Amino acid sequence: MDAAEFRKRGKEMVDYIADYLETIDKRQVFPDVEPGYLRPLIADCAPQDPESFEDVFKDIEKIIMPGVTHWHSPYFFAYFPAASSFPALLADMLCGGIGCVGFSWAASPACTELETVVLDWLGKMINLPEEFLAEKDGQGGGVIQGSASEATLVSLLAARTKTIRRVQSEKPELTEADIMGRLVAYASDQAHTSVERAALIGGVKIKNVSSDDAFSVCGSALKKVLDEDKASGLIPFFFCATLGTTPCCSFDRLLELGPICNKENIWMHIDAAYAGSAFICPEFRHLLNGVEFADSFNFNPHKWLLVNFDCSAMWVKKRSDLIGAFKLEPLYLQHHHQDSGLVTDYRHWQIPLGRRFRSLKLWFVLRMYGVTGLQEHIRKHVRLSHQFEHLVRQDERFEICAEVILGLVCFRLKGSNELNEALLKSINEAKKIHLVPCHLREKFVLRFAICSRMVESTHIKSAWQHISQLATDLLKTWEQNHHQQKQQ
Amino acid sequence: MDAAEFRKRGKEMVDYIADYLETIDKRQVFPDVEPGYLRPLIADCAPQDPESFEDVFKDIEKIIMPGVTHWHSPYFFAYFPAASSFPALLADMLCGGIGCVGFSWAASPACTELETVVLDWLGKMINLPEEFLAEKDGQGGGVIQGSASEATLVSLLAARTKTIRRVQSEKPELTEADIMGRLVAYASDQAHTSVERAALIGGVKIKNVSSDDAFSVCGSALKKVLDEDKASGLIPFFFCATLGTTPCCSFDRLLELGPICNKENIWMHIDAAYAGSAFICPEFRHLLNGVEFADSFNFNPHKWLLVNFDCSAMWVKKRSDLIGAFKLEPLYLQHHHQDSGLVTDYRHWQIPLGRRFRSLKLWFVLRMYGVTGLQEHIRKHVRLSHQFEHLVRQDERFEICAEVILGLVCFRLKGSNELNEALLKSINEAKKIHLVPCHLREKFVLRFAICSRMVESTHIKSAWQHISQLATDLLKTWEQNHHQQKQQ
Repeated sequence: MDAAEFRKRGKEMVDYIADYLETIDKRQVFPDVEPGYLRPLIADCAPQDPESFEDVFKDIEKIIMPGVTHWHSPYFFAYFPAASSFPALLADMLCGGIGCVGFSWAASPACTELETVVLDWLGKMINLPEEFLAEKDGQGGGVIQGSASEATLVSLLAARTKTIRRVQSEKPELTEADIMGRLVAYASDQAHTSVERAALIGGVKIKNVSSDDAFSVCGSALKKVLDEDKASGLIPFFFCATLGTTPCCSFDRLLELGPICNKENIWMHIDAAYAGSAFICPEFRHLLNGVEFADSFNFNPHKWLLVNFDCSAMWVKKRSDLIGAFKLEPLYLQHHHQDSGLVTDYRHWQIPLGRRFRSLKLWFVLRMYGVTGLQEHIRKHVRLSHQFEHLVRQDERFEICAEVILGLVCFRLKGSNELNEALLKSINEAKKIHLVPCHLREKFVLRFAICSRMVESTHIKSAWQHISQLATDLLKTWEQNHHQQKQQ
Repeated sequence: MDAAEFRKRGKEMVDYIADYLETIDKRQVFPDVEPGYLRPLIADCAPQDPESFEDVFKDIEKIIMPGVTHWHSPYFFAYFPAASSFPALLADMLCGGIGCVGFSWAASPACTELETVVLDWLGKMINLPEEFLAEKDGQGGGVIQGSASEATLVSLLAARTKTIRRVQSEKPELTEADIMGRLVAYASDQAHTSVERAALIGGVKIKNVSSDDAFSVCGSALKKVLDEDKASGLIPFFFCATLGTTPCCSFDRLLELGPICNKENIWMHIDAAYAGSAFICPEFRHLLNGVEFADSFNFNPHKWLLVNFDCSAMWVKKRSDLIGAFKLEPLYLQHHHQDSGLVTDYRHWQIPLGRRFRSLKLWFVLRMYGVTGLQEHIRKHVRLSHQFEHLVRQDERFEICAEVILGLVCFRLKGSNELNEALLKSINEAKKIHLVPCHLREKFVLRFAICSRMVESTHIKSAWQHISQLATDLLKTWEQNHHQQKQQ
């Protein structure tokens, strides 16, 4: 395919994407396919000779679309939102066109410098303490990671290295393996599995800290487990606080936890993967209070800030902590500016070496929406979740299971877990809307997350009517079965 | 921006990208900017109100392009190639438009299934042993990672978990920390730093194995260090063989190394990040002989197979080894097919949770180029590197520093390292072409890598003439200075 054909096909693809997104509400949100559906539909090896664009293009509707879960459908209420917007799509096209691999400053200065500056912009939008910003020769700064999992891992590794060095300087008789074997990381029992996974990867122990009735970790809970572990010779080194947990969007109490971590020389990382975007609204910024105690902070604009995946924004107070954990310098990656202190080589901030020009997406979105446009987006989602909450509360058969703070509503039928599992099954088998569940303590709970950029009040209403009707149908047969079981 | 404006702007962006790539040879390959150039050119915070697309678009040429290193310029000979092609760009647009996050089968079945099938296609193109393929209910299979670094890390972690379990079952008195402290990984002294980094992340020791005169690791070199380490109580568990090292594209001797690793219960991972694409040509496939002994294998279609970054293809013989190292199952990620044995949940195969629909790129490229089109691309690059080699060899002032096997030529002026450093400096300061250096043993060497899809014989000729002229100029002043120094 030459440039002339790309001009033609690229424009067709732009129209196809616009068509897809404009009519996505007409598609069934969750596909009908069964595992293994795709293999019989395509050849079992690559073609020897080139196929035409037309041949490939027509397979999109024939082979791909029947197996797509439509994350941007206004009937998609599962997981958390995956951001998507037209400015981000345009920027990603440009990113592909430039096609640089920005692992060092010299590998493409614009790629590195735009990222640093735009992460400062974003940091200011959520009123991050200045220490996290790169400007004014700061010791901190921001970086775009691929995912919150990577941000957590990178911060845990930085904490591990820092702690090993500190302990070795205090107790030179200990080997690195001795210390590693005694390190312990902590996170809420509500934290995302990626925290446990980071500890698994880093080869260190991790313990759950019990959350309270609001599913939040408070200071006394952390203090208790720290005291026990220190008494038994362990070395606490890392605490991952969560703002906006995945099951129910609860918030750990940073203002209590932060001072404890600081006092105990424990790295505090904050994972605000979903909730972080909301902090651009002054009315939600208080949820971030206490960030001043943290060593690193992360949230995902690719969840709720209209920047397509992947764009996970992470800031550290001391960039030297990250770099110290990773820096290796082969000659083929060195360049004459690198020791000037003026440049950032982001390869030392992340797990992979290569990196795309992802800051373009963030830059396009921040400029073309403006702060006010993005605030509107957040506020609309929060309004819609309260609308749904209100509908649930009006129906006595149901209960709300956790305080609705942002765009997630946890709810269930009053009754057994089996009943609620059956309700979710009937919802997802009907495929009119799509939800996923969670456990809150012993309870099986349905999560209703406001996801699509295009979701409106009418979609919420019709989703609720649908759920309510399915509940009515279910309860009828459930009571009959229950009645029959009693009689037998 | 609504869909109507996206249609308009998307088409403008397609033309901009086509223009950029059609005229890239007119741009200076390496930018003139100094560190910190970008910050003064843009606002110091995000705008409150939306800006127009025109405003943003005009900043691409004003702010971004002056700081871009043009990786696809036919005058770019640095690092290794970054792949780019029009079919891949089209597929990436579609990937953005669909915008699913395919961490599990249910999160978008097409995303998972296309990846599995297309990785089988690619595996067959390089004639990988059947055990690495997913088809026919195989125990193996392929996955797209973001980078070779991640593939190495994932395989090292799988090996670590597997070895810890085996040793614990043999010697239940050892704690996990005891075992961790005794694990050792190995790689060539020519291996990429990402291998050392993977060991650093995984918290295990790593040792270099000495390469021979051809910069290859042979069996006896590995055997020697293994015997020493076992004698001193260490537990060798992982060897990363490299096919196509970054400094000089040398090849470790798989046929000698593989049987040793198998016998010693050492996981052999093969990193063929750059060279792997060449194995689609029968005349280069012999370089992969011995892969049958490996546990995992990786190469980067995003380097040399015309698939835009990121697309790093990895295969394992036993998928259960990877999954065993990572599997954590919160309820919100479970789905009713997951225990059927029929589905793949790729989140267990990788470091991040989220993943883009990257197999679309690979699928578009394999179909629209066909195997023959991709073979042509590889062969052209190899032909051009031999053309450059030939030019160097004709000039008695220069020497070739390693056998030219694929698309990389390592060369230098006969003389001191200082002289060659000065030559590289004059080349890169002239900014007509762009190269990076490496060390081969004590020698400072220039790397000339054939990179661009658009590079032709005439570019090679003019690059050589330019280098040759700069060498002439340099040698003149160098001899004068040398003469003066002698006189002083």
